[in-house]
Amino acid sequence: MEVIKAAILGFGTVGEGVYEAIQTHQQQLQNILGVEVQIAGVLIQDLEKERNIADEVLVTTNFEDILNIPDLQVVFEAIVGEDPSYSYLSQAIDKRCDIVTANKVMFATYGEKLIKKAQTQNVKIGYEATVAGGVPIIRTLAQQLQVNKVGRIQAILNGTSNFILTEMRNKELSFENALGIAQELGYAEADPTNDIGGFDAFYKLMILSSLTFGEQPDWDEVKIEGISALSNDQLEEANQNNFRYKHVAELIKEGDNISASVSPVLTDADHPLYNVEGVDNAVVIEANLAGTLTIQGPGAGKKPTASAMIEDFVHIIQSKKTSYALS
Amino acid sequence: MEVIKAAILGFGTVGEGVYEAIQTHQQQLQNILGVEVQIAGVLIQDLEKERNIADEVLVTTNFEDILNIPDLQVVFEAIVGEDPSYSYLSQAIDKRCDIVTANKVMFATYGEKLIKKAQTQNVKIGYEATVAGGVPIIRTLAQQLQVNKVGRIQAILNGTSNFILTEMRNKELSFENALGIAQELGYAEADPTNDIGGFDAFYKLMILSSLTFGEQPDWDEVKIEGISALSNDQLEEANQNNFRYKHVAELIKEGDNISASVSPVLTDADHPLYNVEGVDNAVVIEANLAGTLTIQGPGAGKKPTASAMIEDFVHIIQSKKTSYALS
Repeated sequence: MEVIKAAILGFGTVGEGVYEAIQTHQQQLQNILGVEVQIAGVLIQDLEKERNIADEVLVTTNFEDILNIPDLQVVFEAIVGEDPSYSYLSQAIDKRCDIVTANKVMFATYGEKLIKKAQTQNVKIGYEATVAGGVPIIRTLAQQLQVNKVGRIQAILNGTSNFILTEMRNKELSFENALGIAQELGYAEADPTNDIGGFDAFYKLMILSSLTFGEQPDWDEVKIEGISALSNDQLEEANQNNFRYKHVAELIKEGDNISASVSPVLTDADHPLYNVEGVDNAVVIEANLAGTLTIQGPGAGKKPTASAMIEDFVHIIQSKKTSYALS
Repeated sequence: MEVIKAAILGFGTVGEGVYEAIQTHQQQLQNILGVEVQIAGVLIQDLEKERNIADEVLVTTNFEDILNIPDLQVVFEAIVGEDPSYSYLSQAIDKRCDIVTANKVMFATYGEKLIKKAQTQNVKIGYEATVAGGVPIIRTLAQQLQVNKVGRIQAILNGTSNFILTEMRNKELSFENALGIAQELGYAEADPTNDIGGFDAFYKLMILSSLTFGEQPDWDEVKIEGISALSNDQLEEANQNNFRYKHVAELIKEGDNISASVSPVLTDADHPLYNVEGVDNAVVIEANLAGTLTIQGPGAGKKPTASAMIEDFVHIIQSKKTSYALS
């Protein structure tokens, strides 16, 4: 059986999730693709740390070692931040590797460039995992709404801030206590600024903008407002009137103009985001033919993120195999 | 510019919707596909009826005329019922036409056969419009959850019965009055048996079963229960306790066994179908990696159904064009 060699960059929750899912779903992958999928290398930061990786896998802190793996075909990227991810992926594309990434900050900034580079090298980039975890929003927009014209997207793209708002309202917890619980449960980082400040949602929204409208608004003109100014009194008053505050990321296209914002929004019971609770993410798409579509599900976590990356991987290999078969 | 010739079988709401959408989105289709899409023929039942179809289009009551259109590439099928649709589509496949269908009754019965036949003739079948209108559930299951193992699907697949339940609860209307309003608004047929009796949802559920599990349960063993036995008192009592009755179509796979049912189900406020109101459809997918995903949107209507069919069409032409380009 043909073997496809892949490498994983970064072995935090996401990288480990991909590794594990490929082991546990090896038979399924073979059934679908007719090939064996082999993780040939893993790029890590700290060689001393104990990890559950098979002995035959090259584990290294040196990206050159990864690039030098013979016949490497696919790179799964699960590093945080712009650098050195962008540089690594550029090099991998130049070596004709397909890319599957979960790195939203990097992709919001360099996604359009990487896609162009990938086209010139005839390789593919999967980035489903950069937005809303296991919720297949990227592929839905890219493939299932091609003729449709999308006028507006409203979304809950950060599970942590949505969880905090839900806990504050349901359990009358203070912001600090709700954040503490989110941190205990592993939803929030030690430094939660990106989540509660709206920056995480902002990066994801910019990726959706590139995909949907072919461009991003000027970042300086995007209003980004976090949730930490919301008081329990405000949440309670809204609730009494059957409203809920949701941390909404919004994109609107009017004529040639794209406007974007991330901010707490008062939603009524008929709003499609009103009932999106806890750590779930959801994306509401207003399309001219299909109407208003909502896609909801787990926006983060080891398995959902691994799901998005492996489904991307399968899609990439299939698109290549079809052409091989027919050429 | 290359021309792709297509025909439409049936010119009711759905057929007309496809025709109109292809006219209004011609530029968009040319941008995406690099071809002109031409409706070359329309099959109708009654030649006397006035229709808004351009003079150069062949309008006929004879399917042979459609089959004889030179270089016909795609057939959009929007007829109701098993016959003669199945026979027409079989013949079209034998002439190497790709198929896009909205016919759920026919496809629930003959879909697996038609797909096999299409494979032997190397043509494609799009059937997104058979289930949940413009909600892209078919392609989500077929393409975005390939590695994931789906254990359960719960869905609201009939907008009419969901609309009636919503009106009865919200406005305390009797079943008869709510049905009357659904008929006035064009949601329900003159004979609403298929909608309120659960049969329409049943056919759609069987299509989802074939797609998700590769087979259907024995039809005789599927419990199909309509909504007409529900009283206002029952709905009101549920509502007081924060429950709602929803007309739920459910598929469960345990081991090798598939069980299916369509019936009124009491949902609590945490249930993903609790807030699906009015004529919306929604499908909840329990997948082992991605988690619980919900997709919601307009389940019927001229534009949403046309949307599903045209997006299918684009997908089919793209999958062929890629191979042309590479071969």
